[in-house]
Amino acid sequence: MSNRDKHDRMANAIRALSMDAVEAAKSGHPGMPMGMADVATVLFGKVLKFDPTDPHWPDRDRFILSAGHGSMLLYSLLYLVGYEGMTIEDIKNFRQLGSKTPGHPEYGHTVGVETTTGPLGQGLANSVGFALAERMLAAQFGSDLVDHYTYVIVGDGCLMEGISEEAIELAGNKKLSKLIVMWDDNHITIDGSTDLSVSTNQLARFEASGWDSVRVDGHDPDAILAAIEHAKTTDKPSLIACRTTIGYGAPTKSGTNAVHGSPLGAAEIAGARAFLHWDSEPFVIPSDVLDCWRLAGLRSRQAHKSWTQRLKEADLDKRAEFERRIRGELPSKMGDVVANVITKARADGGAVATRKSSEIVLEALTAALPEMVGGSADLTHSNNTKTKATSVDVMPPAYDGRYVNWGIREHGMAAAMNGIALHGGFVPYGGTFLVFSDYCRPSIRLAALMGIRVVYVFTHDSIGVGEDGPTHQPVEQLAALRAIPNLLVFRPCDTVETAEAWKLAMEHKTGPSVLALTRQNLPLLRTDSSERCRTAKGGYELAAASDEAKVSLFASGSEVSMAMAAREVLEGQGVPTRVVSVPCFELFLNQPEESRRQVVGKAPVKIAIEAAIRQGWDSIVGSDAAFVGMTGFGASGPAPEVFAHFGITVDGVVQTALSRLEH
Amino acid sequence: MSNRDKHDRMANAIRALSMDAVEAAKSGHPGMPMGMADVATVLFGKVLKFDPTDPHWPDRDRFILSAGHGSMLLYSLLYLVGYEGMTIEDIKNFRQLGSKTPGHPEYGHTVGVETTTGPLGQGLANSVGFALAERMLAAQFGSDLVDHYTYVIVGDGCLMEGISEEAIELAGNKKLSKLIVMWDDNHITIDGSTDLSVSTNQLARFEASGWDSVRVDGHDPDAILAAIEHAKTTDKPSLIACRTTIGYGAPTKSGTNAVHGSPLGAAEIAGARAFLHWDSEPFVIPSDVLDCWRLAGLRSRQAHKSWTQRLKEADLDKRAEFERRIRGELPSKMGDVVANVITKARADGGAVATRKSSEIVLEALTAALPEMVGGSADLTHSNNTKTKATSVDVMPPAYDGRYVNWGIREHGMAAAMNGIALHGGFVPYGGTFLVFSDYCRPSIRLAALMGIRVVYVFTHDSIGVGEDGPTHQPVEQLAALRAIPNLLVFRPCDTVETAEAWKLAMEHKTGPSVLALTRQNLPLLRTDSSERCRTAKGGYELAAASDEAKVSLFASGSEVSMAMAAREVLEGQGVPTRVVSVPCFELFLNQPEESRRQVVGKAPVKIAIEAAIRQGWDSIVGSDAAFVGMTGFGASGPAPEVFAHFGITVDGVVQTALSRLEH
Repeated sequence: MSNRDKHDRMANAIRALSMDAVEAAKSGHPGMPMGMADVATVLFGKVLKFDPTDPHWPDRDRFILSAGHGSMLLYSLLYLVGYEGMTIEDIKNFRQLGSKTPGHPEYGHTVGVETTTGPLGQGLANSVGFALAERMLAAQFGSDLVDHYTYVIVGDGCLMEGISEEAIELAGNKKLSKLIVMWDDNHITIDGSTDLSVSTNQLARFEASGWDSVRVDGHDPDAILAAIEHAKTTDKPSLIACRTTIGYGAPTKSGTNAVHGSPLGAAEIAGARAFLHWDSEPFVIPSDVLDCWRLAGLRSRQAHKSWTQRLKEADLDKRAEFERRIRGELPSKMGDVVANVITKARADGGAVATRKSSEIVLEALTAALPEMVGGSADLTHSNNTKTKATSVDVMPPAYDGRYVNWGIREHGMAAAMNGIALHGGFVPYGGTFLVFSDYCRPSIRLAALMGIRVVYVFTHDSIGVGEDGPTHQPVEQLAALRAIPNLLVFRPCDTVETAEAWKLAMEHKTGPSVLALTRQNLPLLRTDSSERCRTAKGGYELAAASDEAKVSLFASGSEVSMAMAAREVLEGQGVPTRVVSVPCFELFLNQPEESRRQVVGKAPVKIAIEAAIRQGWDSIVGSDAAFVGMTGFGASGPAPEVFAHFGITVDGVVQTALSRLEH
Repeated sequence: MSNRDKHDRMANAIRALSMDAVEAAKSGHPGMPMGMADVATVLFGKVLKFDPTDPHWPDRDRFILSAGHGSMLLYSLLYLVGYEGMTIEDIKNFRQLGSKTPGHPEYGHTVGVETTTGPLGQGLANSVGFALAERMLAAQFGSDLVDHYTYVIVGDGCLMEGISEEAIELAGNKKLSKLIVMWDDNHITIDGSTDLSVSTNQLARFEASGWDSVRVDGHDPDAILAAIEHAKTTDKPSLIACRTTIGYGAPTKSGTNAVHGSPLGAAEIAGARAFLHWDSEPFVIPSDVLDCWRLAGLRSRQAHKSWTQRLKEADLDKRAEFERRIRGELPSKMGDVVANVITKARADGGAVATRKSSEIVLEALTAALPEMVGGSADLTHSNNTKTKATSVDVMPPAYDGRYVNWGIREHGMAAAMNGIALHGGFVPYGGTFLVFSDYCRPSIRLAALMGIRVVYVFTHDSIGVGEDGPTHQPVEQLAALRAIPNLLVFRPCDTVETAEAWKLAMEHKTGPSVLALTRQNLPLLRTDSSERCRTAKGGYELAAASDEAKVSLFASGSEVSMAMAAREVLEGQGVPTRVVSVPCFELFLNQPEESRRQVVGKAPVKIAIEAAIRQGWDSIVGSDAAFVGMTGFGASGPAPEVFAHFGITVDGVVQTALSRLEH
C-alpha cells in the first residue's frame, strides 16, 4: 500500500465513522469531519505529540477543536488512536443521553477533550491561553519539562465571531509562535456560500496582526505536512488555510450547506462509500487501517518516556513543585497568608474600597502562590489587579512575567483565562468593570460548564460608579451572573470578607468565581477577632438585634454598611434590628435548610438591600420581604447623589422598615 | 485671521470646554476631546450635513462617537454649533445628576446624540446599521430623499473589542461606501502604550475586509479634509487613521495615559491655555470663535431647504409613506393582519414549533409592513426568519432587499440592528439560538437603555434543543434576559400567543423585545375564539379548574402544554387544577396588583414549570411555590429523553402536585 493509499484509508476511516455515527444518531454534523479528515489524519498521524495511555501527560501537544460541531472528527480520532476511554460502542452512542460522545465535545466528560467547544470562536480564544501557559510554564520550569505546541482547527464561523479577532491580536502581540491554527476553508456556512456574509481576506487579516499564514490544498497530505513543518519554523503564530470540500466524498451534497448539519441519508452514504472505496459495514474499521491508526497512537511513546526520565532526574524540589502545580493543589500556607491579611486589616481599620481590599489580598496571595497569573482588560489601576509579585508583564520574548495586558478585550481575556486554567500549572485571574461582564459572558458560561478554576475581578460593581453613568453602572449583572450554574458570585462587604472570598475562590477547584468589588470606600465591618471563614456559609448574621428582632436587614457588598447604619437608627428608635451579610448566594443556598432558616430568622419585617435589581433575592429572603435597590438603569452623577436619587440610603432603609412595621 | 488660525481657535474652543468641564466635574475624560479636536473641527466645521434647528432632519449625516468616554467632544460641538438643547450651563453641569451632559452620551436624553456609547466598539457596530439603513431607505425612496453619510470616531479600545471586527467585516461585505470611520490613533490606552497589548496593522486589517484606508496627521486640518474628500470618492467603506496626540495641548500630560480619564488639574490647565494661546476664562468662548462655529452650524441650511422642497414635491403617497416610516408608526392594518393569522391558526390546528409559528406570523407581517428588515446570524432556516416578502437579500450593489445575512456575528448583528432602528425608517428583527443571546448581550442592554424597537428572534429556547447538548441548551438565558430593564421577553406557548407576542413587540416602540421560541412542536392551546390579546397582560388563566382550585400550574412556552396535560391527569384524580400561561413576566408585573393577585389565585399548591432555572419566577408565583425546571446545565440526547432525565415531564408535575397536597 502506497503512503498515499494508507493516508487515504486512514482519513476515510474518520469519514466513515462520522457518516455512520451521525446517521445512527439521526442528528449531527458530518460535513466538517469529512472535509477535515485529511488534515486531521496528518496532524494525529504524523505530527501531534500525545499518548493515548496517558491523556493527561503534561507535555503533550494540545489539540483544540474550535469548530466543536465537528465533534465526530475528534471522537473518531480518539477511538482510532486508541484512547482507552473511547470504544466503538461509544461512537455508536453518539449524541445519546449519558454517552461519552455528546453533540459537542465536553471537557471533563470525555477523556482527550481539552476544552468544551461548540459556541464558535471560543476554542480559538482558549488556544491563546493554552499557548501562553505553555510559554509561561516553560519560562518557569524549563523547556526540558515544558515544550509543546497548541494546534487548533477552526471553521468560518469561528473566524466570523468577534472573539476571534481578540484572540488573533493577542496571539500576535504575545508572539505565540507555537500556536498553529488550521482553518477549514470550505467556503460554506449554514446559510450557504460564505460570500453571503464575508469578503475578508483571512490570510491578510492574520498577517496584519503578526501571524505567518499560508494556504494549502486541505486534501493534499504532503502539502498539509509541509505547511505544519513550515509553521513550526516561524517565530510567529501560524495560520494554515486548508482549502477543503465540506462533506468530502458525499456524491451530491459535498461542497454545499446540505452536508453541514444533517445526516446524509442512506443513499448519499452509499454513494460516499463507493466514492471513497470504503467497503466496510457501518462502524467497522478494517484491521489494517485500525493497525495504522493504533501505531500512530504509539508515535510519541519514546518522547513521553524521555520526558518522564527528565522529570525523574530533575531537582527534587523543582519536581515536587511542578507536580503540585500540574495537580492544581494550593500550597498549604495559603490559609495562613489569608489569615495574616485579615489580622492586619483588623489592626489597620479604616475605610477602603473592596477593589483595594482585593489588591491587599492579592499582594499577599500572589507573593505566596507562583501559580497565580494576573491581568486586566486595560483597567489595571481601576481593577487593582497588579501586585508586586505580578509586576512583571508577560512581554515577548520574555514569558517569565506574571501579568498579562489583555487590552480592551474582555471576551478574549476570559476565554484565554479558560485556556490557561485548562492547560494546567496556573490559576488565572483577570479584571474588568462588572458591567462589562456582559462582554465575556459566553466564556464565563463555559468556565462554569467545564468546572474550571478562573477568578474574575469585577470592580465598579453598582451605581456607585457615579459619573460614568448608566452605560457603566451594572444593575442587572449580579442577577445575570448568579443565574449561571456552577459560578460563585462573591460581593464582599469589607476587607475581611474580600479576603475570605479570595480564599474560597482559590479553593473552588471545580468552578469559576466572580468577585464583585466597589469603587467607593467601605468601612471595616468584620471587626471581631474570629478566625472562622464566615463567607464560606454564603450568608450569616453580622449583627444581632438587641432583643427579639423585629427587623432583619439582608445586604451584600457596599449595602452591608448601609444596613449596619440603618440598624443603628432603628435600634435607636427602639426597634430591635439585626443585619445579615450575604456575600455569596450560591454558598448560602447550598447550606442545609435548617441553617438557612436560622440565618434568615423570624423577624416580622425582612428587607433585602442591594444597589441592583431584586431578581434572585427572593430565593434568600422570600418574596414577601421588602427590597431596597434598583428597578431600572442608573444615572450619571456623583455617587452619593445617585444613591440618594434612587432611594438607596440609610434613611430609605429605615423608612421602609418603619412603614412595614406599621402594617 | 488666517484659515489656519481660525481652525485652531475653533478646535481650541473644544479643548478648553473639555478641560474646563472635566475639571469642574472633577471627573471625566479630557484626553480624547483634546486629541481629536482638530478632526472634529474639520468634520463639523466643513463636512457634516446637519441642521441644529432640526436635529431630526431625516437626511442629515449621522455622527457617531463610538469612543463615548470622549463625550465632552460631542457636547462641546453641540453647544458650539448651536443646538438649542445645549447651553453653556449644560456644559458647566457636565456629569451632574439630571444634566443633559451625562458621563457618556445618551440617546433620547440629549438632542443631537445619535446613539448611546461608552461600552467600546458598540458605536462602530451601530454605524454598520446606520449606513445600511441609509442605503436600504435610499433604495426604497430614492436618493432625492435619502442620501447621507455616516461618520464615526473610534478609539483604540473600539478597535480592540471583538465586535469591531464583526462590524468591519460586515461593512466590507455589504460595501457600505458611505461609512467613514475616523480612528483616534493616539498610541495610548488606559494602561499605557498600545504596544502593551496590540501589534496590529490596522490599515492592513481594514483593507483585508475590503475597506479603503489612509493615515493622516490628525492635527493637520487640510490633510484631514483631503482624507475625508478622498473617502467620499471611493466605493468602499473608509478608515482614516488620524495620528493624534492624546490630550493635545496639555504641557506635561499630553501623549500619556495620565490625560485619558482624569481632570488635568489647575496647573496643567494653565499650561495648556498658554500653549494653545487661549486666554478666556473657563467656559467662556470668545465671540469671534463662537460666531465661526455658529456659522458652521448654518452650513447645511440650503441643503436642508432643498431637501424639504423635494419632499414637498414628491408623490403624495410616497411622501406620506416616507413620513410614516420615519415616525415609526405602524400601518393601521397591522391588527387585522395578526388577527387573520390567529384565525387561520385556529382553523388549521395541529402542532407546530413556535419558531414555525413565528415564521407564519412573519410571513403575514413582513408582507404588510415594508419597514420590517429580517436577518439571522447564519441560522436562517433554524430561526425561520426569512419570508416571501423578505426573500431578497441585501446584496450590494443592490440594497432593495429586506434580508440581511449577518454571518456568524451575533454581537455585530445586534449592534447593527440598533443602528438600523436608530436611523429610522425600519424595524429590524434578527435571529440566533437563545443560548447565543449571551454573545450579543451588551448590544441588547444598550437597546433597552436607549428604548428602541428591535426584535430578537431567539429560537431553540431550552433543553428541547436535544442532541446539541449543554453548550447549545439555554438554562439561565431567560432569567438573564428578564433581568435587563426595559426589555420584553416573550416565551409564547403556541401560534396564537406567538402572534400576539409579535404584535406586542411591534407596538412596543420604547424598547426591544425578545421572542424565545421552541425547536420542538407544540399543540395549539388557545383554541377559544376570543379576539382579546391575552398576552398583553403577561399572564392569564388559560384553563380554569373544575371546582375551587387546589392546584395552580404556571408555565411559559413549551411547558404550558405540559401543564395542560398535567391538569388533565390531576383533574382525572379529582384534584381541581387550573393553568396560568405566563408568556411575558415584564407585562405581567406591570399589571395592577389586584389583577395579578387574581391571576395568581389562592390554590394551596402553586407550581411554576419552565425548562430553565427558577430565578425570576418567585416574583410571579412567590417563593413558597414549587418549581419544576432546571437547576444546572443540560445534557446531550434526544429531547424527550433529556426532558425525562431532568424530571420536566407531565408525571413530574403531577407527582410534585400530589406530594405538595399531602403536606
